[in-house]
Amino acid sequence: MPSISEKAKLMPPSPIRKLVPFAEKAKQKGIKIYHLNIGQPDLPTPEVALNAVKNNNLEIIEYGHSAGNLSYRKKLALYYQKVGIDVSYENILITTGGSEAILFAFMVCLNPDDEVIVPEPYYANYNGFAVQAGITIKPIVSSIKQNFALPPIEKFEELISKKTKAILICNPNNPTGYLYSQAELEKLAYLVKKYDLFLFADEVYREFCYDGKKHFSILNLNGLEDNAIMLDSVSKRYSMCGARVGAIVTRNVDVLNATLKFAQARLCPPAFGQIAAEAAIDTPDSYFKMVYEEYVERRNLMVNMLNSIPGVYCPMPSGAFYTVASFPIDNSDKFCEWLLTDFEYNGQTVMMAPASGFYSNPEHGKNECRLAYVLKKEDIKNAIETLSVALKQYSKKI
Amino acid sequence: MPSISEKAKLMPPSPIRKLVPFAEKAKQKGIKIYHLNIGQPDLPTPEVALNAVKNNNLEIIEYGHSAGNLSYRKKLALYYQKVGIDVSYENILITTGGSEAILFAFMVCLNPDDEVIVPEPYYANYNGFAVQAGITIKPIVSSIKQNFALPPIEKFEELISKKTKAILICNPNNPTGYLYSQAELEKLAYLVKKYDLFLFADEVYREFCYDGKKHFSILNLNGLEDNAIMLDSVSKRYSMCGARVGAIVTRNVDVLNATLKFAQARLCPPAFGQIAAEAAIDTPDSYFKMVYEEYVERRNLMVNMLNSIPGVYCPMPSGAFYTVASFPIDNSDKFCEWLLTDFEYNGQTVMMAPASGFYSNPEHGKNECRLAYVLKKEDIKNAIETLSVALKQYSKKI
Repeated sequence: MPSISEKAKLMPPSPIRKLVPFAEKAKQKGIKIYHLNIGQPDLPTPEVALNAVKNNNLEIIEYGHSAGNLSYRKKLALYYQKVGIDVSYENILITTGGSEAILFAFMVCLNPDDEVIVPEPYYANYNGFAVQAGITIKPIVSSIKQNFALPPIEKFEELISKKTKAILICNPNNPTGYLYSQAELEKLAYLVKKYDLFLFADEVYREFCYDGKKHFSILNLNGLEDNAIMLDSVSKRYSMCGARVGAIVTRNVDVLNATLKFAQARLCPPAFGQIAAEAAIDTPDSYFKMVYEEYVERRNLMVNMLNSIPGVYCPMPSGAFYTVASFPIDNSDKFCEWLLTDFEYNGQTVMMAPASGFYSNPEHGKNECRLAYVLKKEDIKNAIETLSVALKQYSKKI
Repeated sequence: MPSISEKAKLMPPSPIRKLVPFAEKAKQKGIKIYHLNIGQPDLPTPEVALNAVKNNNLEIIEYGHSAGNLSYRKKLALYYQKVGIDVSYENILITTGGSEAILFAFMVCLNPDDEVIVPEPYYANYNGFAVQAGITIKPIVSSIKQNFALPPIEKFEELISKKTKAILICNPNNPTGYLYSQAELEKLAYLVKKYDLFLFADEVYREFCYDGKKHFSILNLNGLEDNAIMLDSVSKRYSMCGARVGAIVTRNVDVLNATLKFAQARLCPPAFGQIAAEAAIDTPDSYFKMVYEEYVERRNLMVNMLNSIPGVYCPMPSGAFYTVASFPIDNSDKFCEWLLTDFEYNGQTVMMAPASGFYSNPEHGKNECRLAYVLKKEDIKNAIETLSVALKQYSKKI
């Protein structure tokens, strides 16, 4: 029997889905699970996007352009201009989800064995794309004690070697919800210029910034035209994760031309997803106001409730719809499993993502979990109450 | 300025799109171009598929399962059973187009620098996926003189080294239209068992077999459960290339489990494409009868007209909707460019795909072009007449 590749063996299984079999068993026992573990918003996709797909008049679902439909790219450029990012459609290549944008960026900019520095905890799937591209992620710890702010620039500098080709940030951050400031980004800009590196920014949560703070895109950093590669997606912005439409946006023409060759090999991004994404740009401001207000209330409710539980610490995140909290527990993997296998309160339990999946070093984040506030407030209230009861029971056990 | 990767430099530009700028200039001059260069069928997508998308009632376009929607996988298993391939939904992983199925197969089964043997001429994008996976394609020439039949099995054996991990065929073949027989496939089966290799088969043209010949899937080869990896797509079957829905189908559980990890990293295949693809399985037989009759007539018309031109030889292909013909020309790249830049007949010209893009060795297929019969018969007639005039003019030039 022929054997699978080393890459296939190295590919990490999805950390978030590791608990799914336990969740399924709990459901079979009739237990209601509050899903704080996933990044799937429960808010509706804007009607204008849904209607565009329903009213499409394609007779043949043909191949589109490999860089994405021209009409969509032109409209997307207008969206970027509206949010203060001055790019033209020629700076944009449409990808199959933000996932493909990350994979293309890794493959186009790094050779196998090259290194990309990423503050951890970080989005777990970066690991999978790194394995596929044969590159190495060098993590740099951001601490919950500093509310996951950008680590000191000297710490980055210590990690830079001949193999370092890029720094990757997610802003606002998944999993921490931290929003990097312009000042922090300018420190990174200085560094990537000094060492001639690429700066990748996963900005898919751009719309989710709170407390009057504004998102600052790496494409607005001066002098970084050749270094800055922005990775985007419509998944979170318009609650359309299944459309599979993202983008890679840069002023670096070499990178764009090379990425187009990768895009040509896979022919084109999905036709209907692009129809939905193009129409979604006309989403009324009232939708984002509704989303904003809803998430702020959910966040405040969740974070305040968490911090009122003895031994729990949760920073107040300024962006995205996640937070990473620390708990008075020995091991978050065990705790999250236990919540599904050995615990219930009024026929309910809670599912969270153990933070271990977001750290490279298994010693980090052992008492931390990621919680997404993608549930209705009433459900968040019940979920955190249930979690509070669970922590009391668990503390007697360990 | 940071430099792009070696892979990015190695990635081949799309050979079919190389001529596009010349075609655009010709169009600007008002010249009508007959597009024999592309594999985009002009036949309509089945209404049942289009209607399923129009009538979808999603309120949130959510992430689906990484292996594809369960309902679609189950229905797709029934489709395979109907065409005589006995697999269950558990043998199927839905991919983002056949493109992703090929890339996953390369990454899951081969290590960087490993080799896959592919009869040439072959689908040009295999090169791009090979570069991305860091693997090497070892071509084995199939000759137009033998109508592109499977090369002798000894020729394969000569190429097998320690690095050889797989053989890849496309059946029916793009670009040649050749349909491999059961006897030919059994020879390959013997070989992959003997050397413990994977056998990949790109079977996306399964529905396009003519002259009473039946398609034989590698999944029906005895004793090949661990070796056979079938790659599929709905693009050609239902004329829905833009849906971006394919599949990897195998009974090898290790390969399936490993592929799922790659699938989890990119989250899920496109939601709307899967809705269309699932509904398309109910396409009435009358649709395929119409398609079959149309393609047989187009093929006969094109091939017979080509063979009536002095110096032209075109085998009669038994499958797909392509044919590779040889012409009395010095260089098909030059000729195809000349057709767009320096020729017109009654305000018309022809665009073909030079066969150089389908061979690894630049010396092979120098006088060959691929023609797709995806145009209406009247257009095919005009196109080949125009081509005939062009060949007369070109012969005076060289």
